[in-house]
Amino acid sequence: MEKHLFLPNLLKQRAFLTPERRALTFEKESYTFREVFKVASRWAGALQNQFDLKKGSKAGVLIKNTKEGYFLLLALQQAGITAVMLNNRLTFDELRFQVQDTSIKALLYDEEFQTHALELKKYIQEEHVISLSEMESKQNGEFLPEEQVEMDSVCTIMYTSGTTGKPKGVLQSYNNHWWSAVGSALNLGLKDTDVWLCAVPLFHISGYSILMRSLIYGMEINLHEKFDEEVINLELKNGGVTIISVVSAMLQRLLKNLGEGGYHPDFRCMLLGGGPAPKSMLEQCKDQRIPVFQTYGMTETSSQFVTLSPEDSLTKLGSAGKPLFPCELKIIHSGKEAPANVQGEIAVRGPNVTRGYYNREEANQASYVDGWFLTGDIGYQDDQGFLYVLDRRSDLIISGGENVYPAEIESVLAAHPAITEAGVIALPSEEWGQVPAAFIVKESPLTVSEVKDFCRNSLAGYKVPHHFYFIESLPRNASNKLLRKDLRELIEKGNFNEDR
Amino acid sequence: MEKHLFLPNLLKQRAFLTPERRALTFEKESYTFREVFKVASRWAGALQNQFDLKKGSKAGVLIKNTKEGYFLLLALQQAGITAVMLNNRLTFDELRFQVQDTSIKALLYDEEFQTHALELKKYIQEEHVISLSEMESKQNGEFLPEEQVEMDSVCTIMYTSGTTGKPKGVLQSYNNHWWSAVGSALNLGLKDTDVWLCAVPLFHISGYSILMRSLIYGMEINLHEKFDEEVINLELKNGGVTIISVVSAMLQRLLKNLGEGGYHPDFRCMLLGGGPAPKSMLEQCKDQRIPVFQTYGMTETSSQFVTLSPEDSLTKLGSAGKPLFPCELKIIHSGKEAPANVQGEIAVRGPNVTRGYYNREEANQASYVDGWFLTGDIGYQDDQGFLYVLDRRSDLIISGGENVYPAEIESVLAAHPAITEAGVIALPSEEWGQVPAAFIVKESPLTVSEVKDFCRNSLAGYKVPHHFYFIESLPRNASNKLLRKDLRELIEKGNFNEDR
Repeated sequence: MEKHLFLPNLLKQRAFLTPERRALTFEKESYTFREVFKVASRWAGALQNQFDLKKGSKAGVLIKNTKEGYFLLLALQQAGITAVMLNNRLTFDELRFQVQDTSIKALLYDEEFQTHALELKKYIQEEHVISLSEMESKQNGEFLPEEQVEMDSVCTIMYTSGTTGKPKGVLQSYNNHWWSAVGSALNLGLKDTDVWLCAVPLFHISGYSILMRSLIYGMEINLHEKFDEEVINLELKNGGVTIISVVSAMLQRLLKNLGEGGYHPDFRCMLLGGGPAPKSMLEQCKDQRIPVFQTYGMTETSSQFVTLSPEDSLTKLGSAGKPLFPCELKIIHSGKEAPANVQGEIAVRGPNVTRGYYNREEANQASYVDGWFLTGDIGYQDDQGFLYVLDRRSDLIISGGENVYPAEIESVLAAHPAITEAGVIALPSEEWGQVPAAFIVKESPLTVSEVKDFCRNSLAGYKVPHHFYFIESLPRNASNKLLRKDLRELIEKGNFNEDR
Repeated sequence: MEKHLFLPNLLKQRAFLTPERRALTFEKESYTFREVFKVASRWAGALQNQFDLKKGSKAGVLIKNTKEGYFLLLALQQAGITAVMLNNRLTFDELRFQVQDTSIKALLYDEEFQTHALELKKYIQEEHVISLSEMESKQNGEFLPEEQVEMDSVCTIMYTSGTTGKPKGVLQSYNNHWWSAVGSALNLGLKDTDVWLCAVPLFHISGYSILMRSLIYGMEINLHEKFDEEVINLELKNGGVTIISVVSAMLQRLLKNLGEGGYHPDFRCMLLGGGPAPKSMLEQCKDQRIPVFQTYGMTETSSQFVTLSPEDSLTKLGSAGKPLFPCELKIIHSGKEAPANVQGEIAVRGPNVTRGYYNREEANQASYVDGWFLTGDIGYQDDQGFLYVLDRRSDLIISGGENVYPAEIESVLAAHPAITEAGVIALPSEEWGQVPAAFIVKESPLTVSEVKDFCRNSLAGYKVPHHFYFIESLPRNASNKLLRKDLRELIEKGNFNEDR
């Protein structure tokens, strides 16, 4: 009896079972699982032999949604290297923090990010930075793929922030990804004609989970580098795609562009993540017969954890649904499990939940109670067990599907010599769902454009506040904790005008 | 980090997630998962409180394919009691062996088997025998279902025989059943409109695995007490059923009765187990557009392990297909892995493979090598990895879907005072696929009908030989091992006439 679970090497097994099935379509080129396994094995050979990356080491990944990015992720799996997934929209400082935090042994990058990659070089052990075209040009026939994968081993690390503003690397094992894929299939069903359109980033769990499902289901990924609503609407109408993952901002753009005629009858799932959807949008989808599955999940749960079926989407408006089969959730109020309709912190349990954050003993101690992971999000369950998410943890802002943490922006702002302190909240945006807005207490004269420039140097573009308000002082409670709710109220009451 | 995997209590979770979905249809009555959970909880309460069966104990189960039998199996899961699945066609002696071998604490039986149950009473600890109608009449409101199930715990024990002739109890954990269900879904796909017709016995892995899939998929079982080809053909034509499990003998009867008009377009899988299918039958299925999925599996792999898709069924005639995704197989020849097209013993590995036989240390030692389970079956893989099964272990005879072991029949025959020794082999049968045939060396005068009567006292009906040959001596090799192949050759060469 083994303590650790081993499964067949996922890509190798898939290439053995269904070699001629399509694995990937990208810019009108398609690849079968046999072909994909061949490329991934060659690249894995280069990683191990040419670049001396051993099994069990960690490599940073700075890629786009391209076929080369996809091949790289599979090559890393084949070589047994943990992929540290870097968000390609981050600034140099943000990237440097993550690169140093995980002590990666190499950085693998798409040429588009060469400037950052070369700047990061000296922060990487052995100063190993390798471009995708270097990978492509290396030949290596000596790679012998593993027969099995140890499911407990760490497949990916993805960063997420929190109250402190310091991002933490979420450990995602093969096991986590496997159970996420299985839980999703048990919920959404599985057809051998399924094709999943991936226009969400591969470096996010939303995109990476599609890659894992593709291997496990034997399903084609239709990969898009950019989200172009016109191109994607055409694909959904033509019938080559059965499932797509989107966030609200994407769905809004699809609806705006949709025009006459609905989607193809084979299109069966619009998987909508990243926060609750507005009623008007859901009603529009119902009118257009678009089957929307709302979901709630996070990097720590290796993608969706709770899903709402289309038949419930309007009767249970605002709900995220019920857990996937292998998953459990409960609401904790005053240290105890809350009854129905009482709000509290959302706690989750299941084999797709991370074992913890990389090198963050303190956060790990604080995040788990009796095997339950505390999400920090606030919500309640109704009588039938449907989950309603009221507030994302740490006043999380979800802007165009990206997580933005107020504390992170606040600490950047506070570092400006002319700023005493700052508070950041979410404001609604038609285009992005939410955008950050900053309240700033000045120490000396300062213009909005100066602050913006300053932010752009230290923060990814999507984190730079869209609205600025100069204020005398920030509302705080007795223990000096910033009251972001009060900032929101100031705006809602119309007491404040935006500074420009 | 937990060493053992826990999942949500399967039936409870299913009843929570999809309470109003149909779980079971039996004789035109249907039950939702909510209703099934309610009955199973009530019965579990009776088991625990009225009949004092504690969590972790073992109970024998002597049932038919009825709704009460189904409820009982779910109640045992809820109460955390391991079900020792007794084949209801066994004789008293056969049952007594299994009942004593597992030291069950109680025997739960359908009224139809009352005679056996009462005879078995004194061989059961505390002489606990409980009929299904007693279960039904007990009320108990105090049952508190477990929140989770420990996946490593033993869900069922099913007996299988071997070379020694002494049946061995196969330990099947919740984990084994789970992975079997998931592997099957990844292979066959999953639709929320799926309905699986179960006319194979619930006490076999073929039937029990449908029950498990039902819980895990949220899928309706259409349960039949008897295999009536006319009734079942009607169901397959009417569209209420999408999948059915059969053995060759059943499929032959369906085809004979089919008449005009094929099956409903929603019918998508004829899952065919129990040995290779004759070419003529497969061709007939192709003509009638019946999607046949041939499978190879055994009690030790918790049902199907290898499956052949319909598109390969005629090009790969005689093959059992490729493994399910979580499963691996290899052919062992002279102690090493055999290359393609070389025959040897089939070895399997995967999370649906049993951890071993109950209380059979020696057999367990012999059955596993480096984590691989040795099936005892002989076969080879072609260049593409398709498995061809040539000989079932220990000259296994598969008669109407039931496993019949020659050694078991031989040891019964040898116990007759007028018989010196006996050899048993399979002969083809149009009705049953195969039937046992006995070669007998007489010590004193004896008629065929005397031998038949003697067999009927000690062997289940399907094990009683259909053909008898009196012979001077049995062919044996140098180490005195019976050469059953030589017996088969005697028949094939026409050297022998049947005795009647």
